[in-house]
Formats: sequence, C-alpha cells, structure tokens
Amino acid sequence: MPEVPIFERLCVIGFGLIGGSIARRAREAGLARALVAYDASDAVRTRVRELGIVDEVAETAQAAVAAADCVIVCVPVGAIAGVAAEIAPSLAPGAILSDVGSTKLGVIGALAAHIPPHVAFVPAHPMAGTEFSGPDSGFSALFEGRWVLLTPPAGTDEAAIGRIEAFWRGCGANVERMEAAHHDRMAAMVSHLPHLIAFTICNTAEGLEDESRREVLQFAASGFRDFTRIAASDPVMWRDIFLANREALLEMLARFTEDAQAMARAIRFGDAAYIERSVERGRAIRQSLIEQKQA
Amino acid sequence: MPEVPIFERLCVIGFGLIGGSIARRAREAGLARALVAYDASDAVRTRVRELGIVDEVAETAQAAVAAADCVIVCVPVGAIAGVAAEIAPSLAPGAILSDVGSTKLGVIGALAAHIPPHVAFVPAHPMAGTEFSGPDSGFSALFEGRWVLLTPPAGTDEAAIGRIEAFWRGCGANVERMEAAHHDRMAAMVSHLPHLIAFTICNTAEGLEDESRREVLQFAASGFRDFTRIAASDPVMWRDIFLANREALLEMLARFTEDAQAMARAIRFGDAAYIERSVERGRAIRQSLIEQKQA
Repeated sequence: MPEVPIFERLCVIGFGLIGGSIARRAREAGLARALVAYDASDAVRTRVRELGIVDEVAETAQAAVAAADCVIVCVPVGAIAGVAAEIAPSLAPGAILSDVGSTKLGVIGALAAHIPPHVAFVPAHPMAGTEFSGPDSGFSALFEGRWVLLTPPAGTDEAAIGRIEAFWRGCGANVERMEAAHHDRMAAMVSHLPHLIAFTICNTAEGLEDESRREVLQFAASGFRDFTRIAASDPVMWRDIFLANREALLEMLARFTEDAQAMARAIRFGDAAYIERSVERGRAIRQSLIEQKQA
Repeated sequence: MPEVPIFERLCVIGFGLIGGSIARRAREAGLARALVAYDASDAVRTRVRELGIVDEVAETAQAAVAAADCVIVCVPVGAIAGVAAEIAPSLAPGAILSDVGSTKLGVIGALAAHIPPHVAFVPAHPMAGTEFSGPDSGFSALFEGRWVLLTPPAGTDEAAIGRIEAFWRGCGANVERMEAAHHDRMAAMVSHLPHLIAFTICNTAEGLEDESRREVLQFAASGFRDFTRIAASDPVMWRDIFLANREALLEMLARFTEDAQAMARAIRFGDAAYIERSVERGRAIRQSLIEQKQA
C-alpha cells in the first residue's frame, strides 16, 4: 500500500458510480487530505452534500478544481472535452488531471488543446463497473482486484504518472500502462463489442412477433439471459463509448461479423468439421479463463 | 406431484448429462419401478454399472428397450435418427418413445419413418443443462424449476403425452406444449443464437495477434467473460444442434446481423439517438427479466 495521503486536495468532477466510488474509497483509505466534488446536476450536488462523504461540494467546476493538486474527471466520455475546456483555466500549477473514460485515444485528442503546460494529464481507465449509476451507486470496494489501465502520452511527467498509479493501488486496483491506441483496440474486443452484441441481441428479440417475444423472456435461462446482464448499463455512457471508440469498435465488429458469416456458411452447407472446430476453440478460451481464475 | 411409479420399466439410451440426470431423478423419486440404461460407449456402460444408479445396463440398444414401457433417447440430436432405426423393431407394443433433443422439427422428420404404429412418439426438450458432460455429470435436481417443452405431432396419443408430462413434472420441471416449428424458432433465438455468438466471439478473440489475445484473457471481466460461460458446452452436441436447426438459426442470425449492421452504421455516421434508443431497449429487456424473476 502506498504512503497516504497521496494528494492534499482531490477533486472529483462527476459523481456517478465511478466518481462516487473514488470519493468513498479515498475517504476510507485516507488517500487525500481533503475531498472536493462537483457534478453538473443540482440534484446530484444536493445528494452528495446529504451523503456527507466529501469535505466540500462546489457550485461550479472552476471553483471545485481551483486549489486541487489532483482532478479526476468522471463524466461520460462524450462530456470529458467540454469539462476540460471549462476547468482548464482554473487548474492550479503542478496539478494532475486524470479521467476514467473507457476509450482513450479520443479523450487524449480532445483534451490536448485545453491542458495548460503547467498541468500533467494522466489518462486512466478503471475497468470496473456495475449496472447501476448515480450518486448512491458507488462503493469503496468497486476497484478491489480490478484493473486500471494508464495510457499517458509520451513525455508525460513520470512523477505525475507515479502518483496516479499509487492512488489506484490505494483503491485496491492492479495498474498497467499501455499505449492509448492499443488500449482502445483491446477495450473494443473485451468490453465494447460484447456490450454492442448484448444490446443488439436484445433488440433482435424485441423485434420478434409478440408471442415469441414473451417466450424469449419466459425461456431466457437457456443462454439469452447471460447476454442481458451487461445490457443493463447506462445508455448515455455506452452511446458515448461507441462513438468515441468508433474505429476500433467497427473493426472488431467487422471481424466478428466475418467469423459469424463463416459459421453461417458452414451451417448452411453442413460443414460439420468447421462448426466443431469453432466450438472447440470457444471451449478452449473458456478453459484458459478458468485457469487464469478470471472465469 | 404425480402418482408414482409412472412407468414400469424406463429405458434411458445415452448416459450423458441429461440421461444421467433423468436416471438419478427417476430413481430418487420412484418415477419408474425399474430402470434400464444403454450407452454406445463401453467405457460409459462400465461407469454406469459402477455408479449403481440403474437396475440394469444392457449390452445392446435393442436389449435395453425390449421390455420397456417408456424409452427416452438422450443422445446428441444428430444421432437420434440412427438410434431410432436401431431400436424401432425391438420396441414393445404400447411403449412410449421420447427424446430430449434441443431441436424438434428435424428429429420428428427423421424418426417418422422408423416409429412402429404400436408406439407413441412424444418429442420433448428439457431446457436445462450445465457445461459438463459424461456419465458422472448428471444430478437429480437438474430439471428442478426448469422448462420442458413437448412438441407432439397432431394425432399423438393423449394418454402417452400425459404420462410424459407427468414424468417431467415428477422431475420437478414446468411443462409446456407447443408446435415443433414454433419451438425451433424460439429455441434458435433464446439458446442457439446466443451459443453461436458466444463461440464466434471466442474465435474472433482467438484470431487476434498474440499480445491482444493474452490481454483478452487478462481483462475479460469487462464483459467478454459473460459470453464465455455458455461457450464451454459440448462441441458434438452443439454441432448437431446448429445443423439440425439450420433454417431457424440462420434466420435469427440474419436478423441479428441486420441489427448489428444498423448499429455499426449508426456508430460510423454518429447517429447518437439511434444508439441510445438501442441501448435503452436492451435495458428494458433486462428489466423485464428481473421483473419475471428470470434474471
């Protein structure tokens, strides 16, 4: 565990599942001497005050960041650039700016123009979540044993990266560094494509005639059900992720579609050996997950 | 609970997960006065004898069915017709023949030619399973609270249907009757398509360059993992199901692919409203499952 506090004054912008979990954990583990929060929604700010888990709830984003030595932006990917533009002039010299967006290349590109030279930007992606959202949904153990990926552009201040890494380790997470473009392809495959498929198959079921739709729900335990858990996530968050990671996601979807079409062709022409090999490979991947204790 | 025993001599052909679970439950609940089993594999027959859960393990399928008043064929869908042809001449007058295949139209067509007029054929599909297979994988509670769908062709003896229904209720299952073609479409949507997608996405991941493949396993918790549980199933069983339910499965895959392509197009051209609506609908389906206590 790193020496605490890591930050004097930590500012969380956006108090949803991730922002709320960061604040709860930081408070519990003493990761920051003081905690300040801001959310664009009046209702959320009121609720955060009631919860009493931060030292201060600011009325503007600028006021929130003013004296902070670390600012973590926890808003949907599509809103990060706007927030950055809003807070940039108020960031303190030497402050570290970070985010929690699920895509990185787009975020880095959108922020580049706004970040003042006296601020270090350390992009981060905590790979953790639940299907819940809002100021009450966060909990301090959310990041325990999960991965946080850092994708700092070349030339980012190493001390700043080290402090962000220490912060996430203090949240109980495993931290790994990778190149932003690589991150986005990997995230497209392990997270964005499965979510896209989950939403899509729900829509396909929804499009069936009434009787069949009722039965899909009635008999969902046969496989369909497994696909719906991740389909329960926040629409705005996912809309933004899909749009922000467009290129990588479309490529992975294209690869998947080719593979699905090859399978369809094998089924149509009765190529039993092809189908069996595909199923065997699926099983092998599952087996690897079990061996790596990720299942 | 129905009055037991329902059958004097119940014969189970094929002693895998389903056949083994039927035998265990029948014994435990006294659903049959005597239990006889047959499996094409010498090793399985030997193991079933060791397990001591049936009264008799026959050396041939013909001998197994000879004096049975009910025969349930529990082999992969692709092997059912062959087994039926083999046992048909030995079936006792008044016997009931049933199966547990995941597709019904093909099975009914394949068997029609073989069933003697003095035998009632009641096709059944217990919608239950695990990712395990073999004679040791079965357990008596497998069907508890699960659905068993009966798809008897028009004109099937009602008394025979009633006894098969009673048998499955004795196994703890809920029983519903539907038309075979309708069953196959529904099963394609709730079970076969999700499995096809699960196998396919595992193959897509497998096709990535080495570094990314390693990471897919490392970071699988972000969504990918949920798709792999059902990809752990038996390759021969699924090969047979895909081939036997070709038309319905290809139609559902085509519908899904259209929906996925519509989503891809929305992502490419930045149609945020379309994406958000799709995600909302996915959430709504998940919500319905939770309300129906199927989640």
